[in-house]
Amino acid sequence: MSGLRIIPIGGMGNVTQNMYVYQYEDEMLIFDCGIGFPTQYMPGVDIMIPDVTYLLEEIEHGKKIVGMVLTHGHDDHIAALPYILPELPEFPIYASPLTAGFARQRMKDSPVQREVTVFKENESFEIGSYFKVEGFPMTHSVPDTRHFAVHTPEGTIYHGTDFKIDLQPVDHVLPDFDTISRLGKQGVLCMLMDCLRVERQDWSKSESAVYSAIEESMIDVKGKYIMTLMSSHIHRIQQTVNVAAKFDRKVVFIGRSVEQNVEVAMDLKKLFIPAGMIVNKRDMQDYRDEELCIIIAGSQGQEGSSLMRAVYGDHPVLQIKPKDCVVFSSDAIPGNEIPYFGAIDELSRNGVKVLYPEIIKDLHQSGHGGAMEQQMMLALVKPQYVFPMGGQDRHREKFHELVAEKMGYKDHEILIPGMGDILEFKDGVPKVVDHINLQPRLVDGLGVGDVGRSVLSDRQALGREGMVVIVIPRVHGQLDSKNINIISRGFVFMKEAQEVVEFLKQTSKDVIEELGVDAKDEDIKRTIERRLARKLYKIIRRAPMILPVIVES
Amino acid sequence: MSGLRIIPIGGMGNVTQNMYVYQYEDEMLIFDCGIGFPTQYMPGVDIMIPDVTYLLEEIEHGKKIVGMVLTHGHDDHIAALPYILPELPEFPIYASPLTAGFARQRMKDSPVQREVTVFKENESFEIGSYFKVEGFPMTHSVPDTRHFAVHTPEGTIYHGTDFKIDLQPVDHVLPDFDTISRLGKQGVLCMLMDCLRVERQDWSKSESAVYSAIEESMIDVKGKYIMTLMSSHIHRIQQTVNVAAKFDRKVVFIGRSVEQNVEVAMDLKKLFIPAGMIVNKRDMQDYRDEELCIIIAGSQGQEGSSLMRAVYGDHPVLQIKPKDCVVFSSDAIPGNEIPYFGAIDELSRNGVKVLYPEIIKDLHQSGHGGAMEQQMMLALVKPQYVFPMGGQDRHREKFHELVAEKMGYKDHEILIPGMGDILEFKDGVPKVVDHINLQPRLVDGLGVGDVGRSVLSDRQALGREGMVVIVIPRVHGQLDSKNINIISRGFVFMKEAQEVVEFLKQTSKDVIEELGVDAKDEDIKRTIERRLARKLYKIIRRAPMILPVIVES
Repeated sequence: MSGLRIIPIGGMGNVTQNMYVYQYEDEMLIFDCGIGFPTQYMPGVDIMIPDVTYLLEEIEHGKKIVGMVLTHGHDDHIAALPYILPELPEFPIYASPLTAGFARQRMKDSPVQREVTVFKENESFEIGSYFKVEGFPMTHSVPDTRHFAVHTPEGTIYHGTDFKIDLQPVDHVLPDFDTISRLGKQGVLCMLMDCLRVERQDWSKSESAVYSAIEESMIDVKGKYIMTLMSSHIHRIQQTVNVAAKFDRKVVFIGRSVEQNVEVAMDLKKLFIPAGMIVNKRDMQDYRDEELCIIIAGSQGQEGSSLMRAVYGDHPVLQIKPKDCVVFSSDAIPGNEIPYFGAIDELSRNGVKVLYPEIIKDLHQSGHGGAMEQQMMLALVKPQYVFPMGGQDRHREKFHELVAEKMGYKDHEILIPGMGDILEFKDGVPKVVDHINLQPRLVDGLGVGDVGRSVLSDRQALGREGMVVIVIPRVHGQLDSKNINIISRGFVFMKEAQEVVEFLKQTSKDVIEELGVDAKDEDIKRTIERRLARKLYKIIRRAPMILPVIVES
Repeated sequence: MSGLRIIPIGGMGNVTQNMYVYQYEDEMLIFDCGIGFPTQYMPGVDIMIPDVTYLLEEIEHGKKIVGMVLTHGHDDHIAALPYILPELPEFPIYASPLTAGFARQRMKDSPVQREVTVFKENESFEIGSYFKVEGFPMTHSVPDTRHFAVHTPEGTIYHGTDFKIDLQPVDHVLPDFDTISRLGKQGVLCMLMDCLRVERQDWSKSESAVYSAIEESMIDVKGKYIMTLMSSHIHRIQQTVNVAAKFDRKVVFIGRSVEQNVEVAMDLKKLFIPAGMIVNKRDMQDYRDEELCIIIAGSQGQEGSSLMRAVYGDHPVLQIKPKDCVVFSSDAIPGNEIPYFGAIDELSRNGVKVLYPEIIKDLHQSGHGGAMEQQMMLALVKPQYVFPMGGQDRHREKFHELVAEKMGYKDHEILIPGMGDILEFKDGVPKVVDHINLQPRLVDGLGVGDVGRSVLSDRQALGREGMVVIVIPRVHGQLDSKNINIISRGFVFMKEAQEVVEFLKQTSKDVIEELGVDAKDEDIKRTIERRLARKLYKIIRRAPMILPVIVES
């Protein structure tokens, strides 16, 4: 008889692509189904999705998925649904109201339509025969975030997804300390906890602290007030709307993600905008600039986003003018600094006032708690074991040192399994019992998974130094070394480089003649590639991709 | 008769690649000759160097370069010397002792050897017939940094390169407030001033504050102490050596840039290391780990740097073990976050203790002053006009608002010319009189300038979606559509994509047959390219570079 398995399929050591599986006997319960965001080392990749091979194999061996719980409405927790659900048999999906709303929205544009059941707060519900789940309010940068107790035959696991402890939340829904303390008193075997912001020793500021920063940023604006933020940040949108109301500005929403999320949140009464205050983006010209507060998507400088198109003068309805004020209510996510600050520089160059958290500090507050809040959660829940999740490797290690150890946990009580490690609790004792090789699954356009490591490394090589194709015709079975063709892109500016072309042709010709008529095609191609690579590097210190090809005709 | 021209050839709106030209009558005086660092949007580019076309054209028109002054020893101020000097006629070069030492070192490995004259502190020296220059000590993150007064027939210009106001500098050389106040009293026409860190409203902390952070980081280390930092940061190195001495650790320098800079600084008595304290990296194995303090290059996570090789287990003499402690005494420069934090994650994953400024705040102090220090400089120098330099566009705009305006400067007294604008002072009045089109000059391997916008945009396209070459043979004047060859890289994993290959061949064949035998090659190639682009985007939402080529045989 096996114990309780906890299998992180994503969301560990790489923050995004969250998916955690709880397995007991023949039943599997999934938490979250999120996408990941590619780095600069994955050119052309749009998103990453979890590798569910383990689930498929277990299903083949007679196991079943009894349900999926969505913890909150961020894309790195829900947006892989349209990709992953078609790969798996059907099962019930549970979420809080807004999370369910966002999840339905993500599926709406895809061929996948599944029911999402809204569970009742503070009431256990059973999933399968072994899992009893309780969801209760927790504060984070999207409303209706929930933490969970997963009661299993091996004990209770606290699933502590992304959170901060916000004592003045915008919607007045505090973390449910009653339930958290009750769980702590009843006994929790293991607590999985968001550790992303462990590097910050201070207690994070409340989201409501952003209000006065928005006020400060809007008070003197003579033209349009243009605010960009994470499009799921409904409370930030609420506060911006409230400040706009105070200054008699109408609100305009621009950008698909913002428009969709606002619609969902208003329908569910999670966002309140007075009647008549919303102006359709196509009717903006009916208002004077100083009457408008525009909330727009693209706060990370994403290529093609509404904000970027407006910044670079390419938006159909929004022109940014010198009297306008553009406010970035977000930090740059690591890796996005160049486009993010590039947009701020471009606006500055054009004489537009730009405000961002470096200038008005409270313009952004993180949704993640610092080390002290993580310590507080340990003090309340008092789990036997603690398992940091939702951070990169450095965060998990710092959690060990700065949170768990400081709260008296011993090394063996702090669980930091490696990526793909399967943790099992049996008779109250945790052990890594197995390992799965998680493969990155990259989505490029409509293709899923056909872009793998070799395609990516080819792209990187091509992107760094370009390429040279050497086309050698074969006529009547003989290589025609007098008619070699050179095709090159991204290497040197070829129109000025006749010399380089001649050199490439001559070197290839030399190889063909040296190896003689009996040489195998493979040998000729390999020799040409190697010799050109060596010579080019020596002459010009560059390494373009070299592709010799023999063409029959 | 013309006035005094100030021509920023680099270092304005893009921080690096510093080169400023002062021109009066037929004489030009250059300040600095620095390199720039490519962003992720310039794949394969090693460095950028200033575009000196303006200088060459002026020389053609009978003007001459009377000299070059180097302000301090950072690479973005001196490292383009080996590339730029051969393009220009000879002229005298002036610098402070350490700056001269670093400049000679940069030229040592190149074919260019030029004298660098060390000027006397606080003594005016004449350059050409019109310029009288005074250099005096200023504090920054490299010793021997100087600010300058440039006395010209039009008035005195204060050349305020990169600085902070450090009141406890490690070498006890304070900014020369006597000279600065005297200049302020005598009257300064215009002050050029570093504005990079204007976003910070506070006064920067002294470099000497790093000492206790280094002490804190070294005190409990059981294995090797490994510190990485900017390799020209001699005062940081000095403080690390001092702490190492206190804890009885020998110092080892690893990495070409660190080793060279330490040698130059010690020779010039700018760095003091007790005899017998330095251990050669090849003799490390003679010491126990806890006896060693290693100072290593690669603090930005640069590919191929000594630190990165050690982190990923590929360094010939340095192995990093779990008991060691690696200390990053540097922040990630925007755009370097992924490799920088990637290295910290890799070390964390391997159980190595890593410390960095997010964890111990004072482990790094910037070399640039905040808005208050910039205000202080204005209060001392009281220039008629002020010209922010050394920042990106957002910094120059924020300088306007947060520094100059607050100190009472009116809009017309704050000069923020655009990139390539030539500013002229005549009878005390500034005016933009001309504009030059500065071209980016990219160095890739040994090639300078042959990588331009078109090559870069090809590289970006190739890197994002890969490429497909369609080779169509022509036999006896006829296109042979049965023997079309497809070569592809970085597009889809071709071994699994026979279907895709067939589709590409068939579509090309269709085009050839549709257009008929009389079609021009160009039309066939263009039609194939367009049709495939459209179809591929429709089917799979991807846009590889498509290169049809007709091969004669």
